[in-house]
Amino acid sequence: MEKIIRGLHQFQNNIFDSQKELFQRLAAGQKPEALFITCSDSRISPTLLTQTKPGDLFILRNAGNIIPPYGAANGGEGATIEYAVTALGIKDIIVCGHSHCGAMHGLLHQEALTNMPSVSSWLQHAESTRRIVLEKYPEQDEEDMVLNAVKENVLVQLENLRTHPSIATGLAMGKLKLHGWVYEIETGRVFAYQPDKKQFIHIQEVAPVIEGRSVAQAITI
Amino acid sequence: MEKIIRGLHQFQNNIFDSQKELFQRLAAGQKPEALFITCSDSRISPTLLTQTKPGDLFILRNAGNIIPPYGAANGGEGATIEYAVTALGIKDIIVCGHSHCGAMHGLLHQEALTNMPSVSSWLQHAESTRRIVLEKYPEQDEEDMVLNAVKENVLVQLENLRTHPSIATGLAMGKLKLHGWVYEIETGRVFAYQPDKKQFIHIQEVAPVIEGRSVAQAITI
Amino acid sequence: MEKIIRGLHQFQNNIFDSQKELFQRLAAGQKPEALFITCSDSRISPTLLTQTKPGDLFILRNAGNIIPPYGAANGGEGATIEYAVTALGIKDIIVCGHSHCGAMHGLLHQEALTNMPSVSSWLQHAESTRRIVLEKYPEQDEEDMVLNAVKENVLVQLENLRTHPSIATGLAMGKLKLHGWVYEIETGRVFAYQPDKKQFIHIQEVAPVIEGRSVAQAITI
Amino acid sequence: MEKIIRGLHQFQNNIFDSQKELFQRLAAGQKPEALFITCSDSRISPTLLTQTKPGDLFILRNAGNIIPPYGAANGGEGATIEYAVTALGIKDIIVCGHSHCGAMHGLLHQEALTNMPSVSSWLQHAESTRRIVLEKYPEQDEEDMVLNAVKENVLVQLENLRTHPSIATGLAMGKLKLHGWVYEIETGRVFAYQPDKKQFIHIQEVAPVIEGRSVAQAITI
Amino acid sequence: MEKIIRGLHQFQNNIFDSQKELFQRLAAGQKPEALFITCSDSRISPTLLTQTKPGDLFILRNAGNIIPPYGAANGGEGATIEYAVTALGIKDIIVCGHSHCGAMHGLLHQEALTNMPSVSSWLQHAESTRRIVLEKYPEQDEEDMVLNAVKENVLVQLENLRTHPSIATGLAMGKLKLHGWVYEIETGRVFAYQPDKKQFIHIQEVAPVIEGRSVAQAITI
Amino acid sequence: MEKIIRGLHQFQNNIFDSQKELFQRLAAGQKPEALFITCSDSRISPTLLTQTKPGDLFILRNAGNIIPPYGAANGGEGATIEYAVTALGIKDIIVCGHSHCGAMHGLLHQEALTNMPSVSSWLQHAESTRRIVLEKYPEQDEEDMVLNAVKENVLVQLENLRTHPSIATGLAMGKLKLHGWVYEIETGRVFAYQPDKKQFIHIQEVAPVIEGRSVAQAITI
Ligand SMILES: [Zn+2]
Ligand SMILES: [Zn+2]
Ligand SMILES: [Zn+2]
Ligand SMILES: [Zn+2]
Ligand SMILES: [Zn+2]
Ligand SMILES: [Zn+2]
Repeated sequence: MEKIIRGLHQFQNNIFDSQKELFQRLAAGQKPEALFITCSDSRISPTLLTQTKPGDLFILRNAGNIIPPYGAANGGEGATIEYAVTALGIKDIIVCGHSHCGAMHGLLHQEALTNMPSVSSWLQHAESTRRIVLEKYPEQDEEDMVLNAVKENVLVQLENLRTHPSIATGLAMGKLKLHGWVYEIETGRVFAYQPDKKQFIHIQEVAPVIEGRSVAQAITI
Repeated sequence: MEKIIRGLHQFQNNIFDSQKELFQRLAAGQKPEALFITCSDSRISPTLLTQTKPGDLFILRNAGNIIPPYGAANGGEGATIEYAVTALGIKDIIVCGHSHCGAMHGLLHQEALTNMPSVSSWLQHAESTRRIVLEKYPEQDEEDMVLNAVKENVLVQLENLRTHPSIATGLAMGKLKLHGWVYEIETGRVFAYQPDKKQFIHIQEVAPVIEGRSVAQAITI
Repeated sequence: MEKIIRGLHQFQNNIFDSQKELFQRLAAGQKPEALFITCSDSRISPTLLTQTKPGDLFILRNAGNIIPPYGAANGGEGATIEYAVTALGIKDIIVCGHSHCGAMHGLLHQEALTNMPSVSSWLQHAESTRRIVLEKYPEQDEEDMVLNAVKENVLVQLENLRTHPSIATGLAMGKLKLHGWVYEIETGRVFAYQPDKKQFIHIQEVAPVIEGRSVAQAITI
Repeated sequence: MEKIIRGLHQFQNNIFDSQKELFQRLAAGQKPEALFITCSDSRISPTLLTQTKPGDLFILRNAGNIIPPYGAANGGEGATIEYAVTALGIKDIIVCGHSHCGAMHGLLHQEALTNMPSVSSWLQHAESTRRIVLEKYPEQDEEDMVLNAVKENVLVQLENLRTHPSIATGLAMGKLKLHGWVYEIETGRVFAYQPDKKQFIHIQEVAPVIEGRSVAQAITI
Repeated sequence: MEKIIRGLHQFQNNIFDSQKELFQRLAAGQKPEALFITCSDSRISPTLLTQTKPGDLFILRNAGNIIPPYGAANGGEGATIEYAVTALGIKDIIVCGHSHCGAMHGLLHQEALTNMPSVSSWLQHAESTRRIVLEKYPEQDEEDMVLNAVKENVLVQLENLRTHPSIATGLAMGKLKLHGWVYEIETGRVFAYQPDKKQFIHIQEVAPVIEGRSVAQAITI
Repeated sequence: MEKIIRGLHQFQNNIFDSQKELFQRLAAGQKPEALFITCSDSRISPTLLTQTKPGDLFILRNAGNIIPPYGAANGGEGATIEYAVTALGIKDIIVCGHSHCGAMHGLLHQEALTNMPSVSSWLQHAESTRRIVLEKYPEQDEEDMVLNAVKENVLVQLENLRTHPSIATGLAMGKLKLHGWVYEIETGRVFAYQPDKKQFIHIQEVAPVIEGRSVAQAITI
């Protein structure tokens, strides 16, 4: 904690002033660009990764970036999503998994979760992921299976997301876009799911920003 | 989304290399300092605020930094907490509310939530907050009431947190510390709850890091 | 009841013998062609409509042909679907709504459900339907709105269906097909959803059985 | 699916016209004779068995013809029953089990359900059935046990049914009758429970329709 | 609290010694005669009313002597009943309502419960009682309606009780008896439900203990 | 049951008259001193133990004197507590465990609960107790462990109690006091938890009634 407290002081004494205007403007209200859903894993910094500032990303984080289907859980996921879409008018939702995810490792090794009953129960919302991985990649080594679980889980959670009424309505009206990403910690690269290719593609390849065309659209599911 | 995609490219092209070693080390596993529970609000950047690096903070975020009591919800909160304490051995948990919180505003204005039933239902887990604020601060103006709701809610959620078995056991064994914070967006200041004074105190006042004594202990509930 | 009892006698005395062999063979086990999910409405006879025999269709019926997402209800829907796919190896699932559906009428007139709290609560699983209809067809007359609700609801329930692990796995492995139908009571016609056209099309048009090509494939979502 | 699609065409081209009047009348509304609750098993055709027409039976079907007690599940069973009694004014409810029921077999062999967690969980609502069978018929062979489970389950589900407010009120006011049936696939016979004899009796024996007296009353529970 | 603490001292100093042997025998284990389920109301003393001693009655008390059906609640009712029947081998269960019950009053005046949402939600398990009373006694004065609610509720809760597997099995095997009582605070009289007369009868009339015949049997439902 | 029926007659014939006035006064309404929460165990008589009369104690009893946290169960505990505090204005709540508690024994021996699934599930709300006992007293003999579980469970349930909004508000406003007691069946002694000493102390030692000072205050948590 000492390190964290020292950081607080450093922020207040040395950093805050340089962003004072931004923060004072933000105090009047937020208007974020997107809802970013990712894992609680300490190795992920959404703002670092996207080089965004306070006010840019509305962020939902839990173990495994899991979104239970509508009605399947009364935790914060449904409410946070509904608030983002309905109250804040968010138009883009990113579900971002990551390499080496402990939750996905646990999903494939449920025998290791006997002393973590809440985790075990939570991973029920990723049961589709588990079954797809076991059936689709039966003979892979450990590391590949976890990475495939990460990818399949992003797709499974996007399906779950679609059952939420605010999302379903936004999609039906063409007002909302969903994005499925995987972040590779060791390389800093991000892969986006491309529905037409049924693959995750390194985002630089799919996203020729130069032409000014929205990358987002291309990778929308 | 274009801004976010451009940010990704900038991170990959210009930033990642300078932190390559850190990220490659982190790929082997995380060992975070603390579990940081805060609101999904886009104006909060936990890593900026604490000047910490990837790997330092395990982060749980939802609308209103709410933690339903054990057994009261099957969302990600219980699982994420259990994973932090049991799998990662985390010793410090910070619940950090913030000024101008939309969730707290909604809690005090439930009539504004009719088209957000999931938010309304989620705020049931802050019902104690609502009742305490209405009874304790009956004649305050809007802004003060929201700020008081933010503070009371941090305390209510700390109570909820204590009902989770992994937390209750950690506290009974003296292995775990809980911290209640409120972050003031417009000033960058953080206030920590001090149980003996029954007040939130600006963390610089309570935390003379110079003397090298753990601030954390002083503000533990 | 007299009519029903008389019917039982007639079946036993006059009908059963002619199908005796079929029934005695079926006593050894079932191997149905498809899972047929439809409304409890008395006007729908799945076997009459599809001219199928005992043993051909595994049938799930409830008010509104609603399938809560995985984990969102502990009623019979999830179990019946899982049994159909896992125990019986079913490869095709039809969700069949119908014109003049009382459940869809109730969904659009919730004020009429005050003395039916269980119905009201059940229709939560069609909340996406309700919101899409209200937003997409705001100025239609009553009858058109109900019919559009019937159609949109078939699509919404197909989305819900996809969150069930046995379905998600079957789809990921290419072993399962989903079909969205609407049955028009007054004409006997059936309309099937065509994803590429984003419309329900009269099934004769899409299904030139003469060529022997599987119609099912064409209308699979 | 080809067979089913062909059946659809045959119905539309060759059958519908002969029942056109009935269907067009039904388009204006349904007024069914009874609520028929039975298993999803493909071998059961309620309309064939009772020789009834479209419009006669409101039909609820799930795996095992199970009705969770009021409040014990938020699936379609409670809503469908409430709608039948409250909106349609139905006066007779038949719970109809059947010989060779796979759900009852699963109930007695839970070890076979490890890959069907939803089925396993659903059968909790027939736990009374399981315990009664194990205690009452401890030394029977497999086939007899399943048949006894089918019978006991009809009685257990009738008990569950009685806890639903619309049913409880109807029974208290003498406006509703419940019927417990078992259908024997291999012989086409139906057995009705007679409370005074505490047995299921072949329905022809209990039902001398000639005298015009309501059979229903005699077999009401 | 002073009165209660003084009572504790009086018990320890003046009363305990006279019952020391009983209590020391009981320390080795309990073997109660019956499970007594009644309201939390302070005016009811089950041991005073039945003139029984410590060790005689296993007692379950909550607001309104309500027993949710099996699976409808995860509160203590189901567990306490299961423990009584399975672990303690109890053979008789008494559900005892009482005159002037505040819970029944609340059930008939739900508008008075807006600041008691948990009570309101709990009374859902007595919704059958409410509907039966409103339909069966529509023109009664307040006091009579509450008393009728008390009586009908005892019957409704007995129905709920029957859905619990341990109860259902005990009843099916003839090992268990259920008793429905109403206690009249102002006269000290107890009325027992007699199924054959479909009435609550003053227990002295139905219970000629002189003949030594088990009263219990006569009033068993 | 004969013994109980005989007791009823004795109460009505010989006892009631002597307390007639009290009971007739109570018929007009209750105003209890405290809410007393204890185990269903037949060996505990709250009125005997506290030498109180009908009307003095509002009593909640279930197996193990367990109070699920707010929102964690829809059984009677939350409603009964809310009614006591909100409708009756109760100011003191006693949670009273007891020596030789079967529920606490079951908690430590879950392998003995396989035929009692409802008990097993209910004890989830005492999971913190179980973990604390296993970690804090790892090498104790059976009897000591049960007694320690009884004590720790009183504290755990007091934590759970604090999450209920009516309790949280009462505590925040200083209007409510919570008391943690353990009753020793074999000696008739009661031990109260003293937060400052972090111990259960024989209540006579802490409660010098002579001085007229409220004992309650001293033992409030
Ligand atoms: Zn992760
Ligand atoms: Zn906030
Ligand atoms: Zn319908
Ligand atoms: Zn069956
Ligand atoms: Zn009462
Ligand atoms: Zn006990």
